[in-house]
Amino acid sequence: MIRSLAVVGTGLIGTSVALAAARRGLPVHLLDADASAVRTAELLGAGTARPPAEPVDLAVLAVPPSKVADVLADQQARGLAHSYTDVASVKAAPEREVLARAPRPTHFVGGHPLAGRERSGPLAARPDLFQDRVWVLTPSRLTSKRAFDRALDLIALCGGVPTVMQSAAHDETVALTSHTPHLMASLVAARLGGRSPVTALLVGQGFRDATRIARGEARLWTDIIETNAGEVDRVLAAVQGDLDRLRVAVQDLAARHPADRSRARRDLTGLLERGTAALETLPPTAAEARSAAGLARVDVTIAERPGELARLLDTAAAHGAGPDTVAAPLAPRGTDGPLVIRFELTPAEADTLARKLAVAGWTVTDTGTGTDSATDTDTATDSREPALTTS
Amino acid sequence: MIRSLAVVGTGLIGTSVALAAARRGLPVHLLDADASAVRTAELLGAGTARPPAEPVDLAVLAVPPSKVADVLADQQARGLAHSYTDVASVKAAPEREVLARAPRPTHFVGGHPLAGRERSGPLAARPDLFQDRVWVLTPSRLTSKRAFDRALDLIALCGGVPTVMQSAAHDETVALTSHTPHLMASLVAARLGGRSPVTALLVGQGFRDATRIARGEARLWTDIIETNAGEVDRVLAAVQGDLDRLRVAVQDLAARHPADRSRARRDLTGLLERGTAALETLPPTAAEARSAAGLARVDVTIAERPGELARLLDTAAAHGAGPDTVAAPLAPRGTDGPLVIRFELTPAEADTLARKLAVAGWTVTDTGTGTDSATDTDTATDSREPALTTS
Repeated sequence: MIRSLAVVGTGLIGTSVALAAARRGLPVHLLDADASAVRTAELLGAGTARPPAEPVDLAVLAVPPSKVADVLADQQARGLAHSYTDVASVKAAPEREVLARAPRPTHFVGGHPLAGRERSGPLAARPDLFQDRVWVLTPSRLTSKRAFDRALDLIALCGGVPTVMQSAAHDETVALTSHTPHLMASLVAARLGGRSPVTALLVGQGFRDATRIARGEARLWTDIIETNAGEVDRVLAAVQGDLDRLRVAVQDLAARHPADRSRARRDLTGLLERGTAALETLPPTAAEARSAAGLARVDVTIAERPGELARLLDTAAAHGAGPDTVAAPLAPRGTDGPLVIRFELTPAEADTLARKLAVAGWTVTDTGTGTDSATDTDTATDSREPALTTS
Repeated sequence: MIRSLAVVGTGLIGTSVALAAARRGLPVHLLDADASAVRTAELLGAGTARPPAEPVDLAVLAVPPSKVADVLADQQARGLAHSYTDVASVKAAPEREVLARAPRPTHFVGGHPLAGRERSGPLAARPDLFQDRVWVLTPSRLTSKRAFDRALDLIALCGGVPTVMQSAAHDETVALTSHTPHLMASLVAARLGGRSPVTALLVGQGFRDATRIARGEARLWTDIIETNAGEVDRVLAAVQGDLDRLRVAVQDLAARHPADRSRARRDLTGLLERGTAALETLPPTAAEARSAAGLARVDVTIAERPGELARLLDTAAAHGAGPDTVAAPLAPRGTDGPLVIRFELTPAEADTLARKLAVAGWTVTDTGTGTDSATDTDTATDSREPALTTS
């Protein structure tokens, strides 16, 4: 295990790393060119602004991607740490620069925790910012086992999920999953500029969610895009091609040429479906998966009376099972057959709910645990063995 | 007030309207071509599937935009209601069709509640879906005062915020705030298609938020885009122009022409800043504004000791003031002057917090209410009059 840590750059990410380490009892040394940022981090209990008397085990460089190699070279010359890692969201160019000019490139491993917040700066920091979040390491051809292991220790300390990739593969992927989405959100947001205040009235939650990433600091993001410009441009070229095709379809629909109409409609639907299909392949987040794996189900067959479902939901809510515990795919198939409502909640909650509902006269037709059964809604209504306890 | 309601189309929006009305004691009649959707809505207590014995006061047409005029003509011929409104997210083309072929266009007023959820169908419905949400009405040149007033009654019943616009202005605006953002999110999401599972590892919360709207039903959205194709194409053309300029900048940065580099960087930053500037002009949502208006502040000056801020935040959290009650702009300015931490919470909570902190030995330098003072962080640290009660 690492026994001491330095954090260079006490912004949101750096201070969050420092807080996580300090809470685990590690001595943490804080460095930042901005004295007030260091002071705030220190007051938060993230560590001390005093420099270490001897090299720490690991230094985390929490600086923009274009600064990683310079800061590494500088700190290695000063002997800040035995090993180094960074947290920048671009990995290939910094790695090239590290290999070209850091005094000891073997002591460095690139890193990228996938975590952030809308707010920036040390006051937005949270020790649990990295809990269950993917944290990529991109060892170079020179990275030592020791530097790599120390970075792994840090990820464990922060509760992150370590993943290993080559820096080029990392950058190709984040161009798709982060950098291009950011740019497109900026383009969409920029369209609102200079519009009348009435426009803001028609800004709903969908727009706010879709453009939230575009609120990031423009100068940091310029640095990120610049450092990964080649990969970003490849994705932008593909988006541009799709946009050209999309416009042909939308223009055909606007022009109302009967001949092109059904083809244009098909093209548009096809494009939208490519989007929904891609999103459906996304796995649940680590936290979602962990929580879903532990869920138990309670199936209730209800009578054919208006308001019966509302009455069940009210009763369930009174016993702690709110609307969000109702599993999605429980619409009745056609108008025949009984309507079965499935609740998904923790085993203890499911146990209580099943008992309370049965006592209140509801027909609980099935309970159980495990992801297989819990997601197997097609066969659930065929269950013939009522059981009031959960395993 | 309207005394009876019909809802044609018991999906998410229609069933939510019906639930809101039914909870207020109104008789609600439910119609849908999909028998299982009507049945589910009825079981939820949203109303009855029986047709009304006599015309209801208001019928809500909760159908896709391309179907509004047909359904209106059909239901007016059957005498379903005295007045009609719809909830489609496009207003000009349906209005044109209504004027051209509805038997009594005076009895109709277009409507668009800005509310939705990721889930669709009647089981996702909520009676409070429209609470504090903008609900646009677009009266045509023929809309009667009576039809308009009945739609206003419905909005009040649902807790919505009524707004009036012309249908053309509405469509121009939603092309910017909803339709184009949806299409761009689809393009971004579609880029993930066919990628290796490793890609999903690097999908963070930012990507999920940015593409959430693209999860909407592809066929409904094809209908929406088609019905507003002219306005959407105008916005897409502008986005395409911005994207072309963006690519020039990114390509210059990728090619590393020293001559173009600083200009390219400036162009890129400028584009990102246009996005952040537009987002900053967005007002808080109705719910945010209402809650912010009622907030009280508690300012605490803390001593210069490592961990002091963490200790304050822990104490505050123990008295119900979690991390999100810490106001954003409280970083110390430079390294001089005392560090003042501001909490923003309800007056009752502020009162309790101020007393508890004072008793625990903290220096509470200011408390108070009102949006003016609460956002006036520049002068707050100059306050000379400690006061432990809130007004």
